[in-house]
Amino acid sequence: MNKYTIGIDYGSLSGRTVLVRCDTGEVVAESTLEYPHAVMDTALPDGTPLGQDWALQDPQDYLDVLYTTIPAVLKESGVDSADIIGVGTDFTACTVLPVKADGTPLCFLPQFRSTPNAYVKLWKHHAAEKYANRLTEIARRRGEAFLDRYGGKISSEWEIPKTWQILDESPEVYEAADHIVEGGDWIVWQLTGVLGKNTCAAGYKGTWNAKDGYPSEEFFKALDPRLANYVSEKMNFPIAPLGKAVGGVTEEMAARTGLKAGTPVSSSIIDAHVAMPSAGITGPGQLLAIMGTSTCDILLSEEERFVPGICGVVDGGVYPGFYAYEAGQSCVGDHFAWFVDHCCPASYKEDADRQGKNLHVYLTELAEKLRPGESGLVALDWWNGNRSVLADYDLTGLLVGMTLSTRPEEIYRALIEATAYGTRMIVDTFVKNGVPVTKFVATGGISQKNAMAMQIYADVLNMPVYIADGKQGGALGAACFAAAAAGKAAGGYDSITEAAAVMGRQKEQFYRPIPENVAVYETLFQEYSALHDYFGRGGSDVMKHLKAMRTKLRG
Amino acid sequence: MNKYTIGIDYGSLSGRTVLVRCDTGEVVAESTLEYPHAVMDTALPDGTPLGQDWALQDPQDYLDVLYTTIPAVLKESGVDSADIIGVGTDFTACTVLPVKADGTPLCFLPQFRSTPNAYVKLWKHHAAEKYANRLTEIARRRGEAFLDRYGGKISSEWEIPKTWQILDESPEVYEAADHIVEGGDWIVWQLTGVLGKNTCAAGYKGTWNAKDGYPSEEFFKALDPRLANYVSEKMNFPIAPLGKAVGGVTEEMAARTGLKAGTPVSSSIIDAHVAMPSAGITGPGQLLAIMGTSTCDILLSEEERFVPGICGVVDGGVYPGFYAYEAGQSCVGDHFAWFVDHCCPASYKEDADRQGKNLHVYLTELAEKLRPGESGLVALDWWNGNRSVLADYDLTGLLVGMTLSTRPEEIYRALIEATAYGTRMIVDTFVKNGVPVTKFVATGGISQKNAMAMQIYADVLNMPVYIADGKQGGALGAACFAAAAAGKAAGGYDSITEAAAVMGRQKEQFYRPIPENVAVYETLFQEYSALHDYFGRGGSDVMKHLKAMRTKLRG
Repeated sequence: MNKYTIGIDYGSLSGRTVLVRCDTGEVVAESTLEYPHAVMDTALPDGTPLGQDWALQDPQDYLDVLYTTIPAVLKESGVDSADIIGVGTDFTACTVLPVKADGTPLCFLPQFRSTPNAYVKLWKHHAAEKYANRLTEIARRRGEAFLDRYGGKISSEWEIPKTWQILDESPEVYEAADHIVEGGDWIVWQLTGVLGKNTCAAGYKGTWNAKDGYPSEEFFKALDPRLANYVSEKMNFPIAPLGKAVGGVTEEMAARTGLKAGTPVSSSIIDAHVAMPSAGITGPGQLLAIMGTSTCDILLSEEERFVPGICGVVDGGVYPGFYAYEAGQSCVGDHFAWFVDHCCPASYKEDADRQGKNLHVYLTELAEKLRPGESGLVALDWWNGNRSVLADYDLTGLLVGMTLSTRPEEIYRALIEATAYGTRMIVDTFVKNGVPVTKFVATGGISQKNAMAMQIYADVLNMPVYIADGKQGGALGAACFAAAAAGKAAGGYDSITEAAAVMGRQKEQFYRPIPENVAVYETLFQEYSALHDYFGRGGSDVMKHLKAMRTKLRG
Repeated sequence: MNKYTIGIDYGSLSGRTVLVRCDTGEVVAESTLEYPHAVMDTALPDGTPLGQDWALQDPQDYLDVLYTTIPAVLKESGVDSADIIGVGTDFTACTVLPVKADGTPLCFLPQFRSTPNAYVKLWKHHAAEKYANRLTEIARRRGEAFLDRYGGKISSEWEIPKTWQILDESPEVYEAADHIVEGGDWIVWQLTGVLGKNTCAAGYKGTWNAKDGYPSEEFFKALDPRLANYVSEKMNFPIAPLGKAVGGVTEEMAARTGLKAGTPVSSSIIDAHVAMPSAGITGPGQLLAIMGTSTCDILLSEEERFVPGICGVVDGGVYPGFYAYEAGQSCVGDHFAWFVDHCCPASYKEDADRQGKNLHVYLTELAEKLRPGESGLVALDWWNGNRSVLADYDLTGLLVGMTLSTRPEEIYRALIEATAYGTRMIVDTFVKNGVPVTKFVATGGISQKNAMAMQIYADVLNMPVYIADGKQGGALGAACFAAAAAGKAAGGYDSITEAAAVMGRQKEQFYRPIPENVAVYETLFQEYSALHDYFGRGGSDVMKHLKAMRTKLRG
């Protein structure tokens, strides 16, 4: 009898569930729920306004994903729940919520329905910037060793800055919270009744390390005396290693979803990192670039190195036995969408409509006729700040080289090229600091849809670009983890690497660098690098000055 | 009996004629002819292709302006040609053509109909850049004194580079040409049968100076031995001072236009400088900014100073008795038009259409709701190079500060602000170098149409901005010169200053600086200045590298 696992991918706007055959990786059924509350970035449902850079979610949406998509895939596939040997999840991160000891989110309580800090702070909630800056400064002053693992800077997207914001702005919420948990850990808790902290989110977003644990009480006290007992009071639950079962599905959840009670549920993992097994990556040196609205790069290595500006390195952060480095670019697909939404003229729209094409396709067709260098444009891809290798969210975009004959497709191509230069900067930084990159694999929407972009990446990197197969990237990887958690005896696998080797895959077709393009892009990358260092490393602080002025004026 | 003069304004795309009453400056009739051949920038009418940065015209269009618009204003006004005491013209410059000794343009000859270098090179023909650069370098090496009068650099728009291009690319055209003349001088020649070189074009575009004349034969020989006799062979005709009659209307021209034979025709003047009398400017320290597709700034002074980066200073270049300085920005209205044409999204177009507004009006309404600094953007206004104070056409545009929440109206406003910073840079440079600027007067399309832009200029300059009255700016000024050429005895005036005092005027309404905006713009101007100097004065040559690569790839 065939055995199956279920993988659930919690993204920024929806949850997507797949039912996968363990011996082939074939996706037998799938179901998606768009979150009814989506992202709340201007107001709560009751009208309570939110400040600039806020991004909240309602955890009820996460439960609704379980209640609707699991029954849907069971029904669509006709698979008997007895043949489902495991459930796995992946989740955006750092996406955190304050909860009571029984798992109830504070935002479910009537007294906190109008309190923004009681809700889930989505990964892209950027309103904790000042706490992140203060934290980095204090950690640097104290010579905290953990800082090096995060490239010398803690992001405003991460756990401690977001928690500190709760405490500082809404001390009553912080006080009422028994735990502050990642969304991924919370959903596993709801499925199994067991609360654990997955090593992936703990390591990349939670400032936790296998060797040293969390930062010291003294450090938290130095941040804010009220945070002194943060770890002992709010984080007093065990670490849950990846690829292992946290517990089994509860009777109550079995009744609501149709799963069998006791079905093993694996530890959750960040939605980016879960792409590693589904892309079939099992060894060091293979950089996986997950290209969507933003790009996340993950790279395994046998050795731990300190790489400046890399967001995190976690021992066993994705696969046991390897250090996993994470880097990223905060504005990729978002960048191209911004251009199409706000800068593409009516005449192009009309022409694209006439041809029955969407604007991305239309612009790409025009842009791919251009030779590298022909636009005369170079951009710094910092419309949403810079994650790697500068780790500075106060940086902003730059475009140079415009003339009166500059056309929209030239700017569009320049923005795509800029993200490729940003990737090259990351790869070069790894290599220069002793972490080899021998293969480049891309996954995520852009890798599947935009051949021109992938060719540009191959030419800029001067490396072949391989493409992961499978539109179910995230959810398929979660199903791999579920198969590893189930174990071989139950019809799964004894490790995530074995599961990934069978269930994950890459396309046969790949993009080869074109030598004449490589030569031109080498020159252009030098120009990009010079601008990158001038505006990103203190030569000019104009971006920060302008952003500070803008923030002040907008209140 | 009232007396009248006719002013003819030869612009880039049309010729506009006005009939003006001398004792009031009232425009009694007007008529315009769009040039049938417009600007030829991709091919000649017979299909002969043109290279990058070419811009040609057909001189037949200039004649057609005389043949159609003069009869039209005579007819419309009903004025007797006996009461028309003078004719004046102004012309774009440097706009030059090679001609035979009888005035026939070489491009009229069958053997040269397909030779691009035989046509009129319009002011914005930029394909002589390499000749301009070589000229500047040789002049600098030889320590030529004239270089200082032009801010240390000769523009590719000017006479010698354009002539050198003719010689170098089409020696047979150069050989066949008996003269190479400005369009303005050529049209006066056609009207009167007399060829003279107006001091304005000679001084600002022709490297001529009242004290020293043209550069030496040795200098021209150093440029190219074939140019050695350029002055003695091609420029052997007299200088024609401004505000004086060159001659009278010929019998033949009288027959074709309806004017009286013998009517005095004044020396032509550059279409920018002619705005001085129509704006009622009669003294030093009053900077006139003529704001159209590009901006030309003219400032009178009693003393001659060397101001770095100012395009030209000519003794008596506009009014006798004053040194006239010329500066400019090569991309102003063109800049905003580029944005509207190529960067304004379909949704804005639809909304503007629904409201029955053109896109400039629509964007301006959105942009004027923004406070200074709120966009977080700064641009370098170099989409068409930089005329003053860097005199470098290889510079290109830059925009910095974009985020994913940047909207089109913010970019539009940033482009307008950038041109204001560029103007401030010019004013500051004058003042720093001992040429006072005590009043700022604007004229041209933008000054009449865009109140937001004018308020931004007032705030950035921290000076009131006065606006010249009269939509017929250029043509009215030409009519003033005609009145001065006619003289008081005939019903005109004895000098251009007297004519300007009566016939020219400014609006009563002006723009006052708003103190809180002034403070913000002072800060932003410092950011602009830092970027200006970094990219414009050698800190980074990225713009030149990118433009060179683009030019090479486009062939």
